[in-house]
Amino acid sequence: MDPTRPQMTLADIARLAGVGSATASRALNNDKGVSAQTRQRVLNVAAQYSYVVSPEAVRLAKGKLGRVAVVAPHLSRWFFGEMVEGIETVFRDAGIDVLLYFVGSLEDRRAFFEKLPARRKVDAVIVVGFPVEEAERARLELLNVNIVAAGGQHEVYPNVCIDDYRAGRQAMDHLLFLGHRRIGMIEAVDLDQPTEPSGRSSAYREALKESKLPLDPELVVSAPWGGEQGAQAMDALLSLKTPPTAVYAHSDEVAVGAMRSIRRAGLRIPEDISIVGIDDHPVASLVDLTTIRQPVRSQGELAAQMVLALLEGKTLPEREITVSTQLIVRSTTAPPRQDPSQISS
Amino acid sequence: MDPTRPQMTLADIARLAGVGSATASRALNNDKGVSAQTRQRVLNVAAQYSYVVSPEAVRLAKGKLGRVAVVAPHLSRWFFGEMVEGIETVFRDAGIDVLLYFVGSLEDRRAFFEKLPARRKVDAVIVVGFPVEEAERARLELLNVNIVAAGGQHEVYPNVCIDDYRAGRQAMDHLLFLGHRRIGMIEAVDLDQPTEPSGRSSAYREALKESKLPLDPELVVSAPWGGEQGAQAMDALLSLKTPPTAVYAHSDEVAVGAMRSIRRAGLRIPEDISIVGIDDHPVASLVDLTTIRQPVRSQGELAAQMVLALLEGKTLPEREITVSTQLIVRSTTAPPRQDPSQISS
Repeated sequence: MDPTRPQMTLADIARLAGVGSATASRALNNDKGVSAQTRQRVLNVAAQYSYVVSPEAVRLAKGKLGRVAVVAPHLSRWFFGEMVEGIETVFRDAGIDVLLYFVGSLEDRRAFFEKLPARRKVDAVIVVGFPVEEAERARLELLNVNIVAAGGQHEVYPNVCIDDYRAGRQAMDHLLFLGHRRIGMIEAVDLDQPTEPSGRSSAYREALKESKLPLDPELVVSAPWGGEQGAQAMDALLSLKTPPTAVYAHSDEVAVGAMRSIRRAGLRIPEDISIVGIDDHPVASLVDLTTIRQPVRSQGELAAQMVLALLEGKTLPEREITVSTQLIVRSTTAPPRQDPSQISS
Repeated sequence: MDPTRPQMTLADIARLAGVGSATASRALNNDKGVSAQTRQRVLNVAAQYSYVVSPEAVRLAKGKLGRVAVVAPHLSRWFFGEMVEGIETVFRDAGIDVLLYFVGSLEDRRAFFEKLPARRKVDAVIVVGFPVEEAERARLELLNVNIVAAGGQHEVYPNVCIDDYRAGRQAMDHLLFLGHRRIGMIEAVDLDQPTEPSGRSSAYREALKESKLPLDPELVVSAPWGGEQGAQAMDALLSLKTPPTAVYAHSDEVAVGAMRSIRRAGLRIPEDISIVGIDDHPVASLVDLTTIRQPVRSQGELAAQMVLALLEGKTLPEREITVSTQLIVRSTTAPPRQDPSQISS
């Protein structure tokens, strides 16, 4: 690279080709009103100096930016990286660029949405994996662009997600089918945005109710998403007078952390305690974790396809796409041991 | 959102404020030559219609785009997500947007670099985690922007990385110190870009040589980066007539895969086989894996800070920043068992 070489401007190209700037511009943009001979002369000069038309200028003139913003809380967690990769793949094929914004903390989020209307830089916004608050929604609407949500339920925007209640039921029904009667739940929560209990939590309560099992509040522990937090939550469950024989964790990362606590307590999985997660994170197969698989990359791809349809002015056949989840049985779940106290209960 | 409401143009604002477009533009950009009264009238109209100056237009005029491209092979792997998160954090504070491009396959990479000079959209490029080939370098240079590499060694560009040889030696020296004499290596390779053996590989050979231990080629297995591939490579090592008593894996993901193979073979870690990885991936602490920690997010932050310095026209104090790595001993490494055949050798 030669950082001292200034970039050629349109005026430079026009001067070297012996035409006016307007003519040079028309020639480069393949617009009408320029003779074939003049056009060729301008293109030759441009090629000689590796000059390319600024895509900005062309797009601005056409009123389309060719860029979409992706707003996500993180990237370091697999779910978000995988989702963004799916989104980018579709937009790349469509010649659209992806601008990436992280809004990890509540403070970041507030700042981002506050400044948002000044960012007239994108044709659409995809919000990944978090619910949008009322105030944020108002700022988004000032942008006057299309908004799609991925990996989270949003009644107001077109969205792609899994059915959290159904995923939770798949996990709980598997444990109940194996014969577990004392089941713990590690409920993942986002401390930055306390929301109403998700479908993953109500699935636990409904499954117990349908099986006519009591709801023991000490068997439910809340923890922020993440492995270390899952480990701490599991420590709490293990310290109970009667620990559970099985645990349903809201995510695989939480479950893998919980597995460490079980192992460190000298207990065996699944002989002493069964555990099931949600996601089918790549690490799940490596630690032989039973889980509920969700297709993450597809959710990103589908959300991006929704945006493309909206940008083309099409009406979406479905405003909400729910992708299906699936029980993957590995070796962390088994029937409970034949403990007399459990049998008699 | 009301997708039917057209965005206001500068001409609309000018007309509503009763001034010409040039005056409206000057008023909105806070340029000279507009009376306070006129400026206020234009701003009032703009506020009324939520009109904001297109940042494109302002930046184009100033010759700076306020955008940097980040080119990475993936996002779904933790290393890349964490790195991009570090980069974005620094640029967000500087008011610079991040455009994200994935070039996972060799085909994607070729297409990306081929089209590159036409993408006059960014002020700089950060290449994350892969070596840049000669032909790609030529295309990058046509862009005439600053280029910085992160997470990989690049002699030609300013870069931030770890010392791969040193990281490998930390892993090997730990195993040798514990008394292992028959050590296997799972060498991670990128099938898409066969390059010369990395420092991580030469560290293995040098460490054995210094300890006057023979180099047994059957103890070195190459595998693509990833857990499943690590598991397969470990199967090969376990099928040897005399398997190793310890394994050095080029990454934690590879190591966690290898742990599954060891476990499935009915062997105990570390009693029967020790294993060490590189990264300190979040999963390492959850599976109690001994590893060599590298600060990934910091590498992204430092690379972004280099770009900021270059954009400000500063000379970099160092063109190559090497961040240090650190042995984290957990419970997957221990001295080898007192096997008579090993002692006598």
